[in-house]
Amino acid sequence: MPKIVNHDHQKQKVAEAAWRVILKQGMEQASVRNIADEAGLSVGSLRHYFATQSDLYAYSMNMVSERVAQRIQNIKFSGDVLHDGPLLVHEILPLDQETRLEMEVWFAFVVKSLSDLSLESLRKEVDRHMRVIFTSIVQGLIDQSLAKPDLNADFEAERFYALVDGLAMHAILRPELLPPDKIKALIRHHLYSLCISEVRGPDPS
Amino acid sequence: MPKIVNHDHQKQKVAEAAWRVILKQGMEQASVRNIADEAGLSVGSLRHYFATQSDLYAYSMNMVSERVAQRIQNIKFSGDVLHDGPLLVHEILPLDQETRLEMEVWFAFVVKSLSDLSLESLRKEVDRHMRVIFTSIVQGLIDQSLAKPDLNADFEAERFYALVDGLAMHAILRPELLPPDKIKALIRHHLYSLCISEVRGPDPS
Repeated sequence: MPKIVNHDHQKQKVAEAAWRVILKQGMEQASVRNIADEAGLSVGSLRHYFATQSDLYAYSMNMVSERVAQRIQNIKFSGDVLHDGPLLVHEILPLDQETRLEMEVWFAFVVKSLSDLSLESLRKEVDRHMRVIFTSIVQGLIDQSLAKPDLNADFEAERFYALVDGLAMHAILRPELLPPDKIKALIRHHLYSLCISEVRGPDPS
Repeated sequence: MPKIVNHDHQKQKVAEAAWRVILKQGMEQASVRNIADEAGLSVGSLRHYFATQSDLYAYSMNMVSERVAQRIQNIKFSGDVLHDGPLLVHEILPLDQETRLEMEVWFAFVVKSLSDLSLESLRKEVDRHMRVIFTSIVQGLIDQSLAKPDLNADFEAERFYALVDGLAMHAILRPELLPPDKIKALIRHHLYSLCISEVRGPDPS
Protein backbone atom coordinates (compact mmCIF):
# COMPACT_ATOMS: atom_id res chain seq x y z
CA MET A 1 0.00 0.00 0.00
CA PRO A 2 1.36 3.44 -0.85
CA LYS A 3 2.19 5.80 1.98
CA ILE A 4 -0.61 8.31 2.45
CA VAL A 5 0.75 11.82 2.81
CA ASN A 6 -1.35 14.92 3.23
CA HIS A 7 -0.17 16.93 0.23
CA ASP A 8 -1.18 20.37 1.56
CA HIS A 9 0.32 19.67 4.94
CA GLN A 10 3.62 18.69 3.33
CA LYS A 11 3.60 21.85 1.19
CA GLN A 12 3.09 23.95 4.31
CA LYS A 13 5.97 22.20 6.02
CA VAL A 14 8.23 22.96 3.08
CA ALA A 15 7.08 26.59 3.04
CA GLU A 16 7.81 26.88 6.76
CA ALA A 17 11.28 25.48 6.10
CA ALA A 18 11.70 28.17 3.42
CA TRP A 19 10.72 30.82 5.99
CA ARG A 20 13.31 29.51 8.44
CA VAL A 21 16.10 29.58 5.85
CA ILE A 22 15.16 33.13 4.84
CA LEU A 23 15.05 34.28 8.47
CA LYS A 24 18.33 32.65 9.45
CA GLN A 25 20.41 33.04 6.32
CA GLY A 26 18.67 35.54 4.06
CA MET A 27 16.95 35.19 0.70
CA GLU A 28 20.27 34.63 -1.11
CA GLN A 29 20.66 31.31 0.69
CA ALA A 30 17.09 30.18 0.10
CA SER A 31 17.98 27.71 -2.67
CA VAL A 32 15.84 24.64 -3.33
CA ARG A 33 18.70 22.52 -1.93
CA ASN A 34 18.97 24.49 1.34
CA ILE A 35 15.20 24.52 1.82
CA ALA A 36 15.01 20.75 1.16
CA ASP A 37 17.78 20.22 3.76
CA GLU A 38 15.94 22.38 6.28
CA ALA A 39 12.69 20.45 5.63
CA GLY A 40 14.47 17.11 5.94
CA LEU A 41 13.60 16.13 2.37
CA SER A 42 15.62 15.23 -0.68
CA VAL A 43 15.59 17.74 -3.53
CA GLY A 44 13.72 15.10 -5.56
CA SER A 45 10.95 14.80 -2.94
CA LEU A 46 10.65 18.57 -2.70
CA ARG A 47 10.24 18.74 -6.50
CA HIS A 48 7.24 16.50 -6.04
CA TYR A 49 5.49 19.34 -4.21
CA PHE A 50 6.99 22.30 -6.03
CA ALA A 51 8.10 21.87 -9.63
CA THR A 52 10.13 25.11 -9.62
CA GLN A 53 11.77 27.46 -7.15
CA SER A 54 9.31 30.14 -8.30
CA ASP A 55 6.36 27.93 -7.29
CA LEU A 56 7.92 27.35 -3.89
CA TYR A 57 8.57 31.06 -3.36
CA ALA A 58 5.07 32.07 -4.46
CA TYR A 59 3.49 29.49 -2.15
CA SER A 60 5.68 30.55 0.79
CA MET A 61 4.93 34.23 0.26
CA ASN A 62 1.22 33.51 -0.13
CA MET A 63 1.21 31.57 3.14
CA VAL A 64 2.08 34.80 4.99
CA SER A 65 -0.86 36.69 3.51
CA GLU A 66 -3.19 33.69 4.04
CA ARG A 67 -2.37 33.68 7.74
CA VAL A 68 -3.07 37.41 8.06
CA ALA A 69 -6.33 36.99 6.10
CA GLN A 70 -7.34 34.10 8.36
CA ARG A 71 -6.75 36.17 11.51
CA ILE A 72 -8.76 39.06 10.07
CA GLN A 73 -11.65 36.66 9.29
CA ASN A 74 -11.64 35.55 12.92
CA ILE A 75 -12.13 39.08 14.29
CA LYS A 76 -15.43 39.64 16.05
CA PHE A 77 -16.47 43.02 14.69
CA SER A 78 -18.68 45.25 16.83
CA GLY A 79 -19.73 47.70 14.11
CA ASP A 80 -18.00 50.59 15.93
CA VAL A 81 -15.15 51.74 13.72
CA LEU A 82 -13.18 53.15 16.68
CA HIS A 83 -13.19 49.65 18.13
CA ASP A 84 -12.95 47.58 14.94
CA GLY A 85 -10.40 49.74 13.10
CA PRO A 86 -7.57 49.09 15.58
CA LEU A 87 -8.43 45.36 15.72
CA LEU A 88 -8.05 45.16 11.96
CA VAL A 89 -4.83 47.15 11.89
CA HIS A 90 -3.30 45.12 14.73
CA GLU A 91 -3.61 41.95 12.65
CA ILE A 92 -1.42 43.52 9.96
CA LEU A 93 1.28 44.61 12.41
CA PRO A 94 4.06 42.50 13.95
CA LEU A 95 2.92 42.62 17.59
CA ASP A 96 4.21 39.26 18.84
CA GLN A 97 6.99 36.81 18.07
CA GLU A 98 4.98 34.85 15.50
CA THR A 99 3.76 37.85 13.51
CA ARG A 100 7.21 39.45 13.71
CA LEU A 101 8.69 36.45 11.92
CA GLU A 102 5.89 36.51 9.34
CA MET A 103 6.49 40.20 8.68
CA GLU A 104 10.23 39.72 8.32
CA VAL A 105 9.64 36.95 5.75
CA TRP A 106 7.07 39.16 4.03
CA PHE A 107 9.51 42.07 3.64
CA ALA A 108 12.13 39.71 2.21
CA PHE A 109 9.63 38.51 -0.41
CA VAL A 110 8.44 42.05 -1.12
CA VAL A 111 11.99 43.15 -1.89
CA LYS A 112 12.50 40.02 -3.97
CA SER A 113 9.31 40.78 -5.90
CA LEU A 114 11.02 43.88 -7.28
CA SER A 115 13.37 41.71 -9.36
CA ASP A 116 11.19 38.57 -9.57
CA LEU A 117 8.07 39.09 -11.65
CA SER A 118 6.51 35.80 -10.50
CA LEU A 119 6.00 37.35 -7.04
CA GLU A 120 4.81 40.73 -8.25
CA SER A 121 1.16 39.81 -8.87
CA LEU A 122 0.71 38.44 -5.34
CA ARG A 123 2.35 41.51 -3.85
CA LYS A 124 0.03 43.80 -5.82
CA GLU A 125 -3.03 41.73 -4.89
CA VAL A 126 -2.19 42.06 -1.18
CA ASP A 127 -1.59 45.78 -1.68
CA ARG A 128 -5.09 46.10 -3.17
CA HIS A 129 -6.60 44.31 -0.15
CA MET A 130 -4.73 46.62 2.19
CA ARG A 131 -6.05 49.67 0.37
CA VAL A 132 -9.61 48.35 0.71
CA ILE A 133 -9.07 47.87 4.47
CA PHE A 134 -7.72 51.37 5.08
CA THR A 135 -10.31 53.01 2.85
CA SER A 136 -13.07 51.15 4.74
CA ILE A 137 -11.74 52.36 8.10
CA VAL A 138 -11.60 56.01 7.00
CA GLN A 139 -14.98 55.71 5.26
CA GLY A 140 -16.33 54.18 8.47
CA LEU A 141 -15.30 57.29 10.40
CA ILE A 142 -17.09 59.45 7.83
CA ASP A 143 -20.24 57.27 7.76
CA GLN A 144 -20.47 57.21 11.56
CA SER A 145 -20.11 61.04 11.68
CA LEU A 146 -16.87 60.78 13.62
CA ALA A 147 -14.54 62.20 10.96
CA LYS A 148 -13.33 65.78 10.82
CA PRO A 149 -15.26 67.81 8.25
CA ASP A 150 -13.85 67.75 4.70
CA LEU A 151 -11.75 64.67 5.36
CA ASN A 152 -10.47 63.34 2.05
CA ALA A 153 -11.07 59.57 2.36
CA ASP A 154 -8.61 58.38 -0.32
CA PHE A 155 -5.90 60.72 0.88
CA GLU A 156 -6.31 59.69 4.53
CA ALA A 157 -6.43 55.99 3.62
CA GLU A 158 -3.09 56.44 1.83
CA ARG A 159 -1.60 58.20 4.87
CA PHE A 160 -2.89 55.62 7.35
CA TYR A 161 -1.70 52.70 5.20
CA ALA A 162 1.78 54.21 4.81
CA LEU A 163 1.98 54.87 8.56
CA VAL A 164 1.09 51.26 9.35
CA ASP A 165 3.58 49.79 6.87
CA GLY A 166 6.27 52.15 8.17
CA LEU A 167 5.54 51.08 11.75
CA ALA A 168 5.61 47.43 10.70
CA MET A 169 9.04 47.93 9.14
CA HIS A 170 10.38 49.86 12.12
CA ALA A 171 9.02 47.23 14.52
CA ILE A 172 11.10 44.62 12.67
CA LEU A 173 14.20 46.78 12.42
CA ARG A 174 14.18 48.40 15.87
CA PRO A 175 11.97 46.19 18.09
CA GLU A 176 13.57 47.65 21.21
CA LEU A 177 12.26 51.13 20.30
CA LEU A 178 8.79 50.01 19.23
CA PRO A 179 7.25 47.61 21.74
CA PRO A 180 3.69 46.43 20.92
CA ASP A 181 2.04 48.83 23.39
CA LYS A 182 3.71 51.83 21.79
CA ILE A 183 2.65 50.71 18.30
CA LYS A 184 -0.94 50.25 19.47
CA ALA A 185 -0.91 53.69 21.11
CA LEU A 186 0.37 55.24 17.87
CA ILE A 187 -2.41 53.56 15.86
CA ARG A 188 -5.07 54.74 18.33
CA HIS A 189 -3.62 58.25 18.35
CA HIS A 190 -3.61 58.40 14.56
CA LEU A 191 -7.19 57.14 14.28
CA TYR A 192 -8.43 59.71 16.80
CA SER A 193 -6.49 62.46 15.04
CA LEU A 194 -8.84 61.95 12.07
CA CYS A 195 -11.89 62.56 14.26
CA ILE A 196 -13.78 65.65 15.34
CA SER A 197 -12.59 67.03 18.67
CA GLU A 198 -15.66 65.71 20.53
CA VAL A 199 -14.26 62.21 19.91
CA ARG A 200 -11.15 62.14 22.04
CA GLY A 201 -9.01 59.11 22.62
CA PRO A 202 -6.70 58.35 25.52
CA ASP A 203 -3.51 60.31 26.11
CA PRO A 204 -0.81 59.61 23.53
CA SER A 205 1.89 58.39 25.89
CA MET B 1 55.50 54.15 -14.94
CA PRO B 2 52.58 52.57 -13.04
CA LYS B 3 49.09 53.41 -14.18
CA ILE B 4 47.57 56.03 -11.91
CA VAL B 5 44.03 55.12 -10.86
CA ASN B 6 41.85 57.14 -8.54
CA HIS B 7 41.15 54.59 -5.84
CA ASP B 8 37.97 56.18 -4.47
CA HIS B 9 36.60 56.76 -7.92
CA GLN B 10 37.13 53.08 -8.78
CA LYS B 11 35.45 51.99 -5.55
CA GLN B 12 32.44 54.13 -6.39
CA LYS B 13 32.28 52.61 -9.87
CA VAL B 14 32.29 49.12 -8.37
CA ALA B 15 29.58 50.10 -5.86
CA GLU B 16 27.45 51.50 -8.68
CA ALA B 17 27.88 48.21 -10.53
CA ALA B 18 26.71 46.43 -7.35
CA TRP B 19 23.61 48.67 -7.30
CA ARG B 20 22.84 47.80 -10.93
CA VAL B 21 23.14 44.06 -10.29
CA ILE B 22 20.88 44.33 -7.22
CA LEU B 23 18.29 46.39 -9.14
CA LYS B 24 18.24 44.14 -12.20
CA GLN B 25 18.71 40.69 -10.71
CA GLY B 26 18.15 40.96 -6.96
CA MET B 27 20.46 40.60 -3.99
CA GLU B 28 20.76 36.81 -4.50
CA GLN B 29 22.64 37.45 -7.75
CA ALA B 30 24.93 40.12 -6.32
CA SER B 31 27.97 37.85 -6.10
CA VAL B 32 31.48 39.26 -6.33
CA ARG B 33 31.78 37.60 -9.75
CA ASN B 34 28.58 39.14 -11.14
CA ILE B 35 29.47 42.57 -9.76
CA ALA B 36 32.98 42.35 -11.25
CA ASP B 37 31.45 41.41 -14.63
CA GLU B 38 29.02 44.34 -14.43
CA ALA B 39 31.92 46.69 -13.54
CA GLY B 40 34.06 45.34 -16.39
CA LEU B 41 36.75 44.14 -13.97
CA SER B 42 38.29 40.79 -13.20
CA VAL B 43 37.47 39.29 -9.80
CA GLY B 44 41.16 39.76 -8.95
CA SER B 45 41.05 43.49 -9.74
CA LEU B 46 37.85 43.92 -7.72
CA ARG B 47 39.56 42.22 -4.75
CA HIS B 48 42.16 44.99 -4.94
CA TYR B 49 39.44 47.48 -3.90
CA PHE B 50 37.32 45.24 -1.68
CA ALA B 51 38.96 42.36 0.14
CA THR B 52 35.64 40.70 0.96
CA GLN B 53 32.06 40.66 -0.26
CA SER B 54 31.05 42.14 3.11
CA ASP B 55 33.34 45.15 2.53
CA LEU B 56 31.83 45.66 -0.90
CA TYR B 57 28.27 45.44 0.43
CA ALA B 58 28.96 47.79 3.35
CA TYR B 59 30.56 50.35 1.02
CA SER B 60 27.69 50.10 -1.49
CA MET B 61 25.05 50.49 1.23
CA ASN B 62 26.94 53.40 2.78
CA MET B 63 27.11 55.14 -0.59
CA VAL B 64 23.30 55.44 -0.55
CA SER B 65 23.25 57.14 2.84
CA GLU B 66 26.22 59.35 1.90
CA ARG B 67 24.34 60.69 -1.10
CA VAL B 68 21.25 61.46 0.98
CA ALA B 69 23.45 63.15 3.62
CA GLN B 70 25.16 65.20 0.91
CA ARG B 71 21.85 66.42 -0.47
CA ILE B 72 20.66 67.36 3.02
CA GLN B 73 23.87 69.34 3.57
CA ASN B 74 23.18 71.29 0.39
CA ILE B 75 19.73 72.46 1.55
CA LYS B 76 19.43 76.22 2.06
CA PHE B 77 17.50 76.38 5.31
CA SER B 78 15.29 79.42 5.98
CA GLY B 79 14.77 78.88 9.71
CA ASP B 80 11.00 78.42 9.19
CA VAL B 81 10.20 74.83 10.10
CA LEU B 82 7.09 74.77 7.88
CA HIS B 83 9.38 75.53 4.94
CA ASP B 84 12.49 73.60 6.01
CA GLY B 85 10.74 70.47 7.31
CA PRO B 86 9.35 69.40 3.94
CA LEU B 87 12.68 70.17 2.22
CA LEU B 88 14.43 67.83 4.64
CA VAL B 89 11.84 65.09 4.30
CA HIS B 90 11.81 65.32 0.50
CA GLU B 91 15.50 64.43 0.41
CA ILE B 92 14.76 61.16 2.20
CA LEU B 93 11.94 60.20 -0.18
CA PRO B 94 12.19 58.68 -3.66
CA LEU B 95 10.80 61.60 -5.68
CA ASP B 96 12.69 61.19 -8.95
CA GLN B 97 14.27 58.40 -11.00
CA GLU B 98 17.68 58.70 -9.31
CA THR B 99 16.41 58.66 -5.73
CA ARG B 100 13.94 55.89 -6.57
CA LEU B 101 16.82 53.63 -7.58
CA GLU B 102 18.75 54.62 -4.43
CA MET B 103 15.77 53.77 -2.24
CA GLU B 104 15.23 50.42 -3.93
CA VAL B 105 18.88 49.52 -3.33
CA TRP B 106 18.56 50.78 0.24
CA PHE B 107 15.56 48.53 0.99
CA ALA B 108 17.41 45.53 -0.44
CA PHE B 109 20.35 46.23 1.89
CA VAL B 110 18.03 46.86 4.86
CA VAL B 111 16.40 43.46 4.41
CA LYS B 112 19.83 41.90 3.95
CA SER B 113 21.00 43.55 7.19
CA LEU B 114 18.49 41.37 9.07
CA SER B 115 20.57 38.27 8.32
CA ASP B 116 23.96 39.97 7.74
CA LEU B 117 25.38 41.51 10.89
CA SER B 118 28.10 43.38 9.00
CA LEU B 119 25.40 45.70 7.62
CA GLU B 120 23.44 46.09 10.84
CA SER B 121 25.56 48.83 12.42
CA LEU B 122 25.27 51.09 9.37
CA ARG B 123 21.52 50.51 9.23
CA LYS B 124 21.20 51.45 12.91
CA GLU B 125 23.41 54.52 12.50
CA VAL B 126 21.21 55.80 9.67
CA ASP B 127 18.12 55.05 11.77
CA ARG B 128 19.57 57.21 14.57
CA HIS B 129 20.16 60.09 12.13
CA MET B 130 16.60 59.79 10.86
CA ARG B 131 15.26 59.95 14.41
CA VAL B 132 17.26 63.14 15.03
CA ILE B 133 15.82 64.69 11.88
CA PHE B 134 12.19 63.91 12.72
CA THR B 135 12.58 64.91 16.35
CA SER B 136 14.11 68.23 15.25
CA ILE B 137 11.19 68.93 12.91
CA VAL B 138 8.56 68.25 15.58
CA GLN B 139 10.59 70.16 18.18
CA GLY B 140 10.84 73.02 15.68
CA LEU B 141 7.04 73.22 15.52
CA ILE B 142 6.92 73.38 19.33
CA ASP B 143 9.72 75.96 19.61
CA GLN B 144 8.13 78.20 16.98
CA SER B 145 4.74 77.99 18.79
CA LEU B 146 3.12 76.31 15.81
CA ALA B 147 2.42 72.94 17.42
CA LYS B 148 -0.88 71.86 18.91
CA PRO B 149 -0.87 72.11 22.70
CA ASP B 150 0.35 69.01 24.56
CA LEU B 151 2.04 67.59 21.48
CA ASN B 152 4.25 64.70 22.55
CA ALA B 153 7.48 65.35 20.57
CA ASP B 154 8.95 61.83 20.74
CA PHE B 155 5.64 60.21 19.93
CA GLU B 156 5.00 62.50 16.96
CA ALA B 157 8.55 62.09 15.67
CA GLU B 158 8.00 58.31 15.68
CA ARG B 159 4.72 58.70 13.80
CA PHE B 160 6.15 61.12 11.22
CA TYR B 161 9.22 58.92 10.65
CA ALA B 162 7.09 55.79 10.17
CA LEU B 163 4.79 57.63 7.77
CA VAL B 164 7.75 58.78 5.66
CA ASP B 165 9.37 55.34 5.52
CA GLY B 166 6.00 53.80 4.64
CA LEU B 167 5.50 56.33 1.85
CA ALA B 168 9.04 55.67 0.61
CA MET B 169 8.30 51.95 0.46
CA HIS B 170 4.95 52.45 -1.25
CA ALA B 171 6.47 54.86 -3.76
CA ILE B 172 8.89 52.09 -4.79
CA LEU B 173 6.25 49.36 -4.83
CA ARG B 174 3.34 51.26 -6.43
CA PRO B 175 4.89 54.29 -8.19
CA GLU B 176 1.78 54.65 -10.37
CA LEU B 177 -0.36 55.27 -7.24
CA LEU B 178 2.10 57.61 -5.52
CA PRO B 179 3.44 60.24 -7.91
CA PRO B 180 5.85 62.78 -6.37
CA ASP B 181 3.23 65.53 -6.10
CA LYS B 182 0.92 63.29 -4.09
CA ILE B 183 3.74 62.30 -1.73
CA LYS B 184 4.66 65.95 -1.19
CA ALA B 185 1.01 66.83 -0.53
CA LEU B 186 0.78 64.01 2.05
CA ILE B 187 3.91 65.27 3.83
CA ARG B 188 2.61 68.83 3.88
CA HIS B 189 -0.79 67.67 5.11
CA HIS B 190 0.79 65.61 7.90
CA LEU B 191 3.04 68.47 9.01
CA TYR B 192 0.10 70.90 9.17
CA SER B 193 -2.00 68.33 11.05
CA LEU B 194 0.48 68.72 13.93
CA CYS B 195 -0.12 72.48 14.08
CA ILE B 196 -2.68 74.66 15.81
CA SER B 197 -5.70 75.45 13.64
CA GLU B 198 -4.49 79.03 12.99
CA VAL B 199 -1.69 77.48 10.93
CA ARG B 200 -3.51 76.02 7.99
CA GLY B 201 -1.82 74.53 4.97
CA PRO B 202 -3.16 74.12 1.47
CA ASP B 203 -6.03 71.75 0.69
CA PRO B 204 -5.07 68.08 0.93
CA SER B 205 -5.94 67.07 -2.62
